[in-house]
Amino acid sequence: MNKALTIKDIAEIAGVAKSTVSRYLNNGKVSEETKEKIRRVIEEHNYEPNAFAQSLKAKKTKFVGIIAPGLDSIVTSKVIMAIDTTLRENGYNPLIINTSLRKDLEIESIENLARLKVDGIILVATEIKDAHRDVISQLKVPFLMIGQVCDGVTSIVNDDYHAGFEVGRYIQEMGHQDVIYLGVSKDDTAVGINRRNGVLDGLRYQNNLMNIRIMESDFTSELSEKIVNDALKDSKPSAIICATDRIALGARKAIQRHNLSVPEDISLTGFGGYDLATLVTPPLTTIKFENEKTGHLAAETIIDLMEGRDVAELQVIGYQLIKSKSVKHK
Amino acid sequence: MNKALTIKDIAEIAGVAKSTVSRYLNNGKVSEETKEKIRRVIEEHNYEPNAFAQSLKAKKTKFVGIIAPGLDSIVTSKVIMAIDTTLRENGYNPLIINTSLRKDLEIESIENLARLKVDGIILVATEIKDAHRDVISQLKVPFLMIGQVCDGVTSIVNDDYHAGFEVGRYIQEMGHQDVIYLGVSKDDTAVGINRRNGVLDGLRYQNNLMNIRIMESDFTSELSEKIVNDALKDSKPSAIICATDRIALGARKAIQRHNLSVPEDISLTGFGGYDLATLVTPPLTTIKFENEKTGHLAAETIIDLMEGRDVAELQVIGYQLIKSKSVKHK
Repeated sequence: MNKALTIKDIAEIAGVAKSTVSRYLNNGKVSEETKEKIRRVIEEHNYEPNAFAQSLKAKKTKFVGIIAPGLDSIVTSKVIMAIDTTLRENGYNPLIINTSLRKDLEIESIENLARLKVDGIILVATEIKDAHRDVISQLKVPFLMIGQVCDGVTSIVNDDYHAGFEVGRYIQEMGHQDVIYLGVSKDDTAVGINRRNGVLDGLRYQNNLMNIRIMESDFTSELSEKIVNDALKDSKPSAIICATDRIALGARKAIQRHNLSVPEDISLTGFGGYDLATLVTPPLTTIKFENEKTGHLAAETIIDLMEGRDVAELQVIGYQLIKSKSVKHK
Repeated sequence: MNKALTIKDIAEIAGVAKSTVSRYLNNGKVSEETKEKIRRVIEEHNYEPNAFAQSLKAKKTKFVGIIAPGLDSIVTSKVIMAIDTTLRENGYNPLIINTSLRKDLEIESIENLARLKVDGIILVATEIKDAHRDVISQLKVPFLMIGQVCDGVTSIVNDDYHAGFEVGRYIQEMGHQDVIYLGVSKDDTAVGINRRNGVLDGLRYQNNLMNIRIMESDFTSELSEKIVNDALKDSKPSAIICATDRIALGARKAIQRHNLSVPEDISLTGFGGYDLATLVTPPLTTIKFENEKTGHLAAETIIDLMEGRDVAELQVIGYQLIKSKSVKHK
């Protein structure tokens, strides 16, 4: 076999980006004109594209592992689909593993992906334990975490504290004094701690007399419905702030079951900002995180890591408060 | 290394099922009592469980590939999650690949999974072309298709024709005479042909004077909304039957945009039967396919194939018509 020309060599001679040459070699989207340019460079240098592509493949599998806590959450699905699309566009083959929120499977899946010799691993994380730190520190392939922060690990997170603060402050500004915050376990740093602290600080911003009941659900609408159903038997708050849209939809069912209305009797908010929130009547006031952006950025970041470029250890994604008719001025 | 005892040998001596031994070796769920039985058989025959498990692993990767057309459809997510859970319970490691409805990626993914030496492949199919038949016929690992039928290929499908028939007949019995059927391309045999034919035959059952407009969308709510929006400019039907819940939600937005109501002005139905359909007001009349059952059955079937047992070439899954307030008697 001929001495291998690097992708960089081809890109420079053809006057195109390295990623374009990657795409060309992996049958990704490249314009006809550019294809012709790259083809000519390879031909003129007497390399056979196939043999060349194969020699590259021998070094790199072009597989990237994505570990997700579930595939039935709209938010996670959006992030995964965006990662998937961007990796494909750059000639990588994503392999997705679902853990159904089982921590042991997260660890095992990282090890399994390493066994499959993938070129990089992305973990959509819900909480980080010592066992994660151990296995991550021993990894020989690039690793990226989404959703949680962990010292020394490249991460992308939502700006949960400030998003929470904005919701809390908005509910307070709308005159609500008696509020339930329905959150999740503190094992989840992003949602259980940061988002919650933001909401509570926002509610108390310039108002220390606020009556706040803090309750804990999991991420299911079923348990959330049950908790709110029980809470409403005690006393009726004027607003319920939920840690996710799915939790809010459970709360909404409980409110309806008590023959109460949103927002006439109780104002209601979520976090997430997707289809479900806009399809119900009234639409849900919610925080829209830019999940597609998170996904694209995650794919670009793991590609940078796999191709040896420097990346920031922490990248933070913004949000937008969507004010809808589920909140009424008290 | 000692001469290998097969899983079957261990199962027979211990008096347990082969799948139980599999689970034991892969750290799956096994009762303490059964664990002890299996452990003793392995010990008494002087085999070291670890070496034994490894020698098995050398032959079988325990990975199963699942190829899905997308991860942002609730129906597909339910099916995938159910397959995933059942495979895990039986000691297999599912690897999921998303194709975003790209046919070329379906073919490529089958080949990639074969390269990764998975023990079996499940394809959640939307349509079957000759290219699929070629690559499937050359596969050396067990293969199962969900959602479409293809001669000589083991398949699991929904009973689309009869489900469609039941919806069509119901709308006819409710007195509707002027109906739009909003379907998808005939490239999709299950939904585009079988479901559609069922609906049309059901509508015309004992009523040949029915006025039916047939329109074609894709699976997005966006295009569906646009099509219904345009159709309502021409004339108003008394009912719209949609090929999926997502299509129905697009239709619903168009109906609202014309300041019309469901069901007072237009009755509306979907197919799918999940969260989205029940959360909107009024809830959507829809066909509930037993997607979890499909998923579990798919996992059990590929396990049977991987472990050398006979399976039926075609298995058909039932359905249930959910009558809700989105349909009114005309």
